[in-house]
Order: sequence, then C-alpha cells, then structure tokens
Amino acid sequence: MSDRDPAGNLTDPVGNLTEPAERHVTPVALNTLADGVTAPWGFRAAGVTAGLKASGKPDVAVVIADQPCTAAAVLTTNQVKAAPVVVTADNLVSSGGVAQAVLLNAGSANVCCGQPGLDLARQAAELTATQIGCAAEQVLVCSTGVIGVPVPATPYLDAIPRVVAAASPEGGLDAAEAIMTTDLVTKEAAVHVTDSEGGSVTVGAMAKGSGMIAPGMATMLCVVTTDAPLSAEQAQGLLADATDSTFNRISVDGVMSTNDTIILLASGTAATPVDTAGVQAGVTAVLGDLARQMVADGEGATRTAEIAVTGGTTETDALAVARQVGTDSLVKTALAGADPNWGRIIAAVGAAPVAIDSTRIRIDLEAGTGADPAWYATPGGPGRDAVCVCRDGMATDVERARAEAVMAADHVRVTIDLGVGTAGSSFLTCDLTHGYITINAEYTT
Amino acid sequence: MSDRDPAGNLTDPVGNLTEPAERHVTPVALNTLADGVTAPWGFRAAGVTAGLKASGKPDVAVVIADQPCTAAAVLTTNQVKAAPVVVTADNLVSSGGVAQAVLLNAGSANVCCGQPGLDLARQAAELTATQIGCAAEQVLVCSTGVIGVPVPATPYLDAIPRVVAAASPEGGLDAAEAIMTTDLVTKEAAVHVTDSEGGSVTVGAMAKGSGMIAPGMATMLCVVTTDAPLSAEQAQGLLADATDSTFNRISVDGVMSTNDTIILLASGTAATPVDTAGVQAGVTAVLGDLARQMVADGEGATRTAEIAVTGGTTETDALAVARQVGTDSLVKTALAGADPNWGRIIAAVGAAPVAIDSTRIRIDLEAGTGADPAWYATPGGPGRDAVCVCRDGMATDVERARAEAVMAADHVRVTIDLGVGTAGSSFLTCDLTHGYITINAEYTT
Repeated sequence: MSDRDPAGNLTDPVGNLTEPAERHVTPVALNTLADGVTAPWGFRAAGVTAGLKASGKPDVAVVIADQPCTAAAVLTTNQVKAAPVVVTADNLVSSGGVAQAVLLNAGSANVCCGQPGLDLARQAAELTATQIGCAAEQVLVCSTGVIGVPVPATPYLDAIPRVVAAASPEGGLDAAEAIMTTDLVTKEAAVHVTDSEGGSVTVGAMAKGSGMIAPGMATMLCVVTTDAPLSAEQAQGLLADATDSTFNRISVDGVMSTNDTIILLASGTAATPVDTAGVQAGVTAVLGDLARQMVADGEGATRTAEIAVTGGTTETDALAVARQVGTDSLVKTALAGADPNWGRIIAAVGAAPVAIDSTRIRIDLEAGTGADPAWYATPGGPGRDAVCVCRDGMATDVERARAEAVMAADHVRVTIDLGVGTAGSSFLTCDLTHGYITINAEYTT
Repeated sequence: MSDRDPAGNLTDPVGNLTEPAERHVTPVALNTLADGVTAPWGFRAAGVTAGLKASGKPDVAVVIADQPCTAAAVLTTNQVKAAPVVVTADNLVSSGGVAQAVLLNAGSANVCCGQPGLDLARQAAELTATQIGCAAEQVLVCSTGVIGVPVPATPYLDAIPRVVAAASPEGGLDAAEAIMTTDLVTKEAAVHVTDSEGGSVTVGAMAKGSGMIAPGMATMLCVVTTDAPLSAEQAQGLLADATDSTFNRISVDGVMSTNDTIILLASGTAATPVDTAGVQAGVTAVLGDLARQMVADGEGATRTAEIAVTGGTTETDALAVARQVGTDSLVKTALAGADPNWGRIIAAVGAAPVAIDSTRIRIDLEAGTGADPAWYATPGGPGRDAVCVCRDGMATDVERARAEAVMAADHVRVTIDLGVGTAGSSFLTCDLTHGYITINAEYTT
C-alpha cells in the first residue's frame, strides 16, 4: 500500500519515499487502448490500393490531423537516405516543426532513384497538401519496399485523392495494413494517460517493421499521434528519448535501413493535459509496445528473448553488453533451437566493448510472457523460477532438462549479472531461424 | 615478359618498373606446396584419439620442432579467455618467446572451467614437455569445442605420450584432422619462398575454423611453422601483420570466440634464408590460403564473395566499407539466393562508419574462382566480364538475367567504387544459409 507525500511522490505506509526523489517523474496512470494512430481525438487515417505491391494488397496510407500539429521525426542515420526521408527532413525545417499529415507507401522504398525520386516525393506531398488544404511543407512522407526500384508515379499519385477522401477516425487499422511489407501482422498501440489531478492525454501509433530492424537508428516506419500540447523542441526531445529506450534496444538482424522514420504529431487539443513527463511516459509506452510487436514479428522469428543485464558499473555498459548478446548470431540460433547454451552467451559478453570479469558473471534463464512492459526499463534480478546455468563464470550443476524446458518458452528472459556494480539495462531480440533465411534468400526485398 | 633491373625490381621489356618502386618488397617467388604444418624441415606432427569428441574421431594433436624455436602468437581479444589461451600467453612471456611444441585438442574448449581448467592446461603442457625433453614453458596449448564443459583429464593426459610418440614429418594431415570441430574439410597450406640470389625458406600451416569466424581477432586455431630465422620481435610483428591482412578480413558469422589462437614457430634452420620481407610474404600467403579455405568451409556456406572496395579516401575507410557489406545479414542471405540485390549492398555501404556520397557509388558483380591469391591485397577495378548493376547510386539498365547468372557462381566478386579517391581494400565472406541455422540451432557447439 503506497500513498503520496505533499510533493506528490509515492511513499510507503510510513511515509518514506518508495521512488528515488531525484526522478521527479509525475505519477501517471497508463491505460492501454485497443486502438492505433487514430486513438486521439482529431486524427483520421486510411489505406487504399494503388497497385504498388505485387500482391495487390493496400499500399498507400495517410494519417491526417484536423489542424496543423507540432511535428518531430527521428530519421535513419544511414548515409544512403531515401527520397521521402530527405523531403520529410526538409519539410520539418521549412515548416518550423509543423505538420498536418503523413503520406506513406509500401512497394517501393524510393531510394537510389536520383532526382526523379526526390521530385516524386515532393510532388506527392504537394498533392496531399492540396487535397487537405494545408501548406506543402506540412505534409511528411514515408516509403518502404525494394531499394532502387522507382515508385510508379501514376498509380501512386492517383491514389492520393482517394486515400485522403477515405480518411476517417476509424481508418487506423486500414492505414497500418497498407504499410506492411514482410510483416505478418499489423502493428498498433495506444494508451490513455491520466494523472491524479484529472489531467489526461491520448497517444496512438502504428508501425511496420519485420526485417532490417537494428539498434542505433529508427529502423522502420512509425507514426505517433497525440492530443498533448508540445513545443517543437519538446516533441523532438521526447521522441528521441522514447526511441532510444525502445526501438533502439531491439534487433532482428542488425541491418540498418535507408528509410527508417518515426514521426510524432501533437495536436495540443487535450482540454486538461498531463504534464510533459506524463506525455513522455505515454509515448514511451506506445513505442515500447510497438517495439515488442516488431521483435515478435521479426522475419522468421519463433521465439523472443529479453537480455537483461544487471550488476554493471554504468547503465551504458550494461546496455552495451545486452546489445552484444542480443545481436550475436550464435546466441540467436541457440534460441531457435531452445538450447540453454550459456557458453555462447558468456562468449558474447566477453566480446562486448566493456571491461568485464568473467569469474564474476552469473547467468539465469527463465520463461516469460513477452509482454512485460518493463523490458525497456532498468531490469531487476531474475525471478523466483529462474534457472541459474552459470555462476562465477562456470557451469552450475543444474539439470540440463530444467534449462531446456525454460528455453522452450515463447519468450525467454536471460539475466546476466556482471557482478561489478548496481547498474542495469535490457535489450529485446528474437531467434535466427530457417524462416529468416527463406524470407531473405528466396525473395528480393 | 618481365625482367629485373639492377636493384632487383621487376621491370617490363623496356625497363620500366612494373611494380611501384616505393613498395620495397624483396622480389620473391612463392611456390605452393601440397603440404601443411610439417612442410618445413625439422617439424613433426600427429593426431590421435583420446575420446574427447562424441564422434570418436581423432581429437588430440601435437606439432613438435626438433629444437626450440622462436615463437609468437596472436590470441583472442575476447575478455572471456580459455585456459589454454592464458597458459600460452604466460608461457610465451616466461620463455621469452621460445617454444618447441604446440599441443591442441578438440571436443572441449576448456573455457569457463575455473582453476581446475587452468591447472589441467598447465599440466598438459608440462607432460608434453617431459615427453619431448624441453622446458614446460616451451610448450604452447590450444583447445576448441564446447564452452563450460571441462576437458576429461584422464583420457586427455593419457593421450599425450601417445601423440608425442606418434609425431612424424608425415603427420601434418593427421594433426589437421584431429583439431576439426564443425569443419567439413581439413585445412592445410604451405609455400616455398625463393629469391633471386638462391635464398629460400619454407612456411607450412594447419588451421581449423568454420563457425565463430569474425574479423577483429584471431578467430580459430592455426599453427604456422617455418625454417626462417626470426627474432621474437620480428616473429610477433610479422604474424600480427599477416593476420591483419588475412584472418581479420574474413567473416562467417561475426562471432568472436574465446579460444582463438594463431601460433608461429620459426626454427631458423634454413641454410640460406630469404630476408624478412620474403618470410612475411610467405606467411601472409599461407594465412591467406587458410583464410580462403575457412570461408569456403564456413558453417552452411554454399558460396563465397569477395567484397572489393575501390575509390576510397583511405585504405582504412575502404576496409570499413568492405567489412560492413561483408558482415551484413541481408547481403549474405541475398548471396545465398543468388539474388543480385544491389539495394542491400548500397544500404550496407551507407551504414558503414565512413563518410560516403551515395550518388558517386558504382557496383559491379562478376563471377570468380574463389582462389584469387590477391583477395587480401589492394583490389583493382572490376574485370571485363563484370556486370554493372548500380552507377551514380542508381540502377543501371542491365538485364536482371545477366546479373543473376553472375550471382549463381560459386564465388562472386562484388566491386564497390566509392568514387571519392584512389584507395581500396577487400574482405571475404560467405553466404548465410539454412545450413548455418541447422548446424547452430540443432546442436550444442
């Protein structure tokens, strides 16, 4: 049972602070909504078929706000940038961080297509703006698909009036479907954020991404909407921080894409909004949820794993170790085989760019649900059902069958204690399977 | 037809230098020998079965010199180091860089086995030394196999007198066979190096390595022998340089092992040796040959590729780009599918930690033999049968069928011209296939 002190901090029954006082995070409640990018009031979306996908499935989507919004974007750090990435970056500068719509397409990435590619991306933004009645620089654009293959201009441009006309507050799922490529499932998330003084905002989002998911960059297409009021600077900082603690801590195959884009539109229409820390919590929760969905839908993935590192000197060190283990091909194939091969894990720990003492390392394995919303937060120790397979850098006498049973779960939590400090971090990954090879060796994607 | 000028440089028929004069490499001829670690006079080897491998195949090997040799080693940079790696490093310090034998075993890596593992590695070195009649610190040790599983002491130690007694100048192949793990073929190489003044040395080597092959470290077990005279300092410098231009430019799966060791034994018994540059050329040729053999025998590999980068600002930049492309999962799966998907290649170029201009990039594909001894040297441009799939960062109008035909070769040469300078480098890789998944997901290795 906890309560709040006069400053609003959570306290235990005898009045001690239960959270470090220096965190200063506004206490908020997050309620998950079964909704997506149109969850906040004042946003509409749609997906239509332009014929850009060989499959004939929907391939052009739009997200439109009822009025210009504060906008921010996290864009790929790949030096080979898609035309829509260049246009989105330019438009955010021209508009001073204001946008009213995002136009997205699958089927072609519009990268390595030269000046015609850039011209087409700009033309698409202009046409969308004309249809909506906003300035051209207030439309942001995203593409995904094969590299080096131009977007067929006529069907793409012809689809724009149709998709704008179709946009509705119920169209979020259609939009999420239209941006899928090798994704097997649509990816949506939304939360309602409330505080103890009656404040509330809604955050909604959709994303696509299944391969080419790597840390260190945006890694996929994602549009986040909210009715919270934010300055352009707040929106950019908040989106970058939320990305860093979610999408930048997952990996499917360690590959950087040329098109990755995360866009935040904040309308500011909430009547009694929560404060910025509350908005940050909401955006982080939504991106965390989508990041989990992406890893679970990783190309060929049959199993996910949280690599939780504890006992590190700094959080940065702990994250570097978690990332090294979570991106290791032999760890990922062991995960595919449900093999409790901690030798591969400790070898990856030793390869991390962080000073470690192998004789202090402890490794625990446990089954999880994969839905733990805390995976991107600082991890605690292993749970009570964890199986300790390595202690002091050596094998324990645990029965192999017990460890194998844990590894057979849909989601596995690997806790690595470095034994040198108190800092921790975690990273989410999936197994490397025959399915990944089939998807990527047998098709041009 | 070429000849030499009075300084011994190669010249064309009209007397111009055909090699850049500033290279100052002693002109030597390299003749490949169908032999291995016992190619130089005065070395003997053997492999016997101790029962450490579940398969019952030979698993303990030794390489013995007739007298103490100058010795050097390149050891794993993984912070989790196998006991034999620690013992080898210690012994090289104690002996001042002198060794007479190398004892190797497969079946267990003797890593993460605590003090008992260290004690066993030292005991094995001592026992080998007693059998040979040299000091204990003049025996170096190597292990490979599963991590965290102790080497069964009794069968391992019992095998030592047997393997020493069996050692002979004809035993190189037996030794190479005994150190195999997931290798499908034994790996041996040898060259006879001669110069124009009648000097000659022989360099021989054996290696094992199939998975866990990554750049940036030693990556496998390798023993190199030569009758050349070298100081300990020369041997160490020469081995490090040769490793850097060969084993550190290949990758199977980007994974660092805990046991990787390359050992050089130089007996100095050659009557009229070539100079140190000649020895360097011989050692580099032998390591380059073994590196090619390793990539071709990469776990699950069906196809190899040389990633040759030209037109870079510096060789370091060019190598960084080649490495990024050669370790990219999507490039490696495209290679598995014989898919001329240059979009994945250029996306990997853009992800390299090197400033590039995507609009200057040209990509050529061509079939090769895989046996080009120049793969680790500075690459030239593409050959006359190359197919240009990307020019100025955009698709060319080359027929897809022509590019597909090239990609179907056993060995593919990908030339990436960065278009910003004159420096080049190259990197060797293999495809990522169902076989890799099967080997690593279905067995504990």
